[in-house]
Amino acid sequence: MPVAPRYVEVDQQGVVFHGHYLTWFDEACTAFLDDLGVAYPDVMAGGHDFQVVHCEIDFAASVRWRDTVRVTVECTHVGSTSFTVAFAVIAHAAGAPERVAVRGHNVYVVVSTEDWAKRPVPEGVRQALTRR
Amino acid sequence: MPVAPRYVEVDQQGVVFHGHYLTWFDEACTAFLDDLGVAYPDVMAGGHDFQVVHCEIDFAASVRWRDTVRVTVECTHVGSTSFTVAFAVIAHAAGAPERVAVRGHNVYVVVSTEDWAKRPVPEGVRQALTRR
Amino acid sequence: MPVAPRYVEVDQQGVVFHGHYLTWFDEACTAFLDDLGVAYPDVMAGGHDFQVVHCEIDFAASVRWRDTVRVTVECTHVGSTSFTVAFAVIAHAAGAPERVAVRGHNVYVVVSTEDWAKRPVPEGVRQALTRR
Amino acid sequence: MPVAPRYVEVDQQGVVFHGHYLTWFDEACTAFLDDLGVAYPDVMAGGHDFQVVHCEIDFAASVRWRDTVRVTVECTHVGSTSFTVAFAVIAHAAGAPERVAVRGHNVYVVVSTEDWAKRPVPEGVRQALTRR
Repeated sequence: MPVAPRYVEVDQQGVVFHGHYLTWFDEACTAFLDDLGVAYPDVMAGGHDFQVVHCEIDFAASVRWRDTVRVTVECTHVGSTSFTVAFAVIAHAAGAPERVAVRGHNVYVVVSTEDWAKRPVPEGVRQALTRR
Repeated sequence: MPVAPRYVEVDQQGVVFHGHYLTWFDEACTAFLDDLGVAYPDVMAGGHDFQVVHCEIDFAASVRWRDTVRVTVECTHVGSTSFTVAFAVIAHAAGAPERVAVRGHNVYVVVSTEDWAKRPVPEGVRQALTRR
Repeated sequence: MPVAPRYVEVDQQGVVFHGHYLTWFDEACTAFLDDLGVAYPDVMAGGHDFQVVHCEIDFAASVRWRDTVRVTVECTHVGSTSFTVAFAVIAHAAGAPERVAVRGHNVYVVVSTEDWAKRPVPEGVRQALTRR
Repeated sequence: MPVAPRYVEVDQQGVVFHGHYLTWFDEACTAFLDDLGVAYPDVMAGGHDFQVVHCEIDFAASVRWRDTVRVTVECTHVGSTSFTVAFAVIAHAAGAPERVAVRGHNVYVVVSTEDWAKRPVPEGVRQALTRR
């Protein structure tokens, strides 16, 4: 997923504020699920929701305004009621080589929209996540 | 209402990004209504909602991280289905004199939460807004 | 400029929070200037900067998550030291007709990066802004 | 540090978007360092800066608009060139008991503002962080 760093996301050190990566990961995860045919509105309509229960982020390099950026996404684990999605932010300034600036992963649990208790990962979601 | 400019709100020019003032105004308006005894959740429970239909902002000076800032709020007009709230952002750096950095106002219309059509300003809200 | 409303931008009423439109306008203005051949970094390198001194926004309709959205941009006025850029947010849900959800404009003044006082609009910028 | 969840921070599920906690942690860390007598501007003036290199967050419960919230902060580790600050978000709705909604920690490295390479934690900072 390509991302254009927004001017508003850049702090007075001239780099993207570290908290904004979770917004990028969130958008990238939605695009990833769409791409797998798992539309979030359909998941909700089916009585399920995904909740982020754990995030981890490692920062290796800064991203600046007008850098060219893409976020890669892959599912690294599917458990009984949760799954893990890993992200990498790959960025470069004009003329500079690409590098992995940030890596992170989110653990999502599947919950029921009725009682918000954990539920098994729906079979369709599991298949989509493990397909590749 | 005092506001501590957040590090995340400051852009690479070292000043608060202009769009964030609408967030400050929104928080200031909530505090203002609370202060007048008009709790937004009660308004919603009464079948009404307020929608921002017009914003205007004038920027006279920059606000920087660690400046001391307060936002003043006053209701400047109550019409039949709308009211106007004016804001001023008053800021100073340590040791510097206070100045009005930003002025703005929002026009809110009262709508029904049933059909989202305009409704007269509820009498209790009108009285609260015109009390001072 | 196409915009995908971000999940983080949608508030608990299910609509894009009104303050975020200024972020979209900012990104749209950057894209517009790029498109005209006026690169903001070059402007800065030339000793000039643009500062937003006035914003106005009118809200006609809500924008929701997963709506298809584009922001149109045009320069509506070039004065001696300032110029005005107008924006329209055009949005539609899947299957629904397009409508103008939000209109707004920003007034920018040209300042020197040395003393931050007003300067005439540089000739190259004036020509680019009035070309169409 | 008390935090009033902002309306803009609440998503359409009615809960604070998970990425905003990193902003709260950032503000809480600044307040914590101020409280210890380690003013960030002084650190910068001394040729040092702090960079976040790792974040971890665990979500146990949601935080909603108008909940009463405070963020606790403590330094849990000081290494040779880095230190770790742990955060807990403690929240409750009106009339409900307090609970820990979110826990997280950030690892900061000390870098030189000259070459942005790692530097030992300055003695004054180390003493402040380990004082309690």
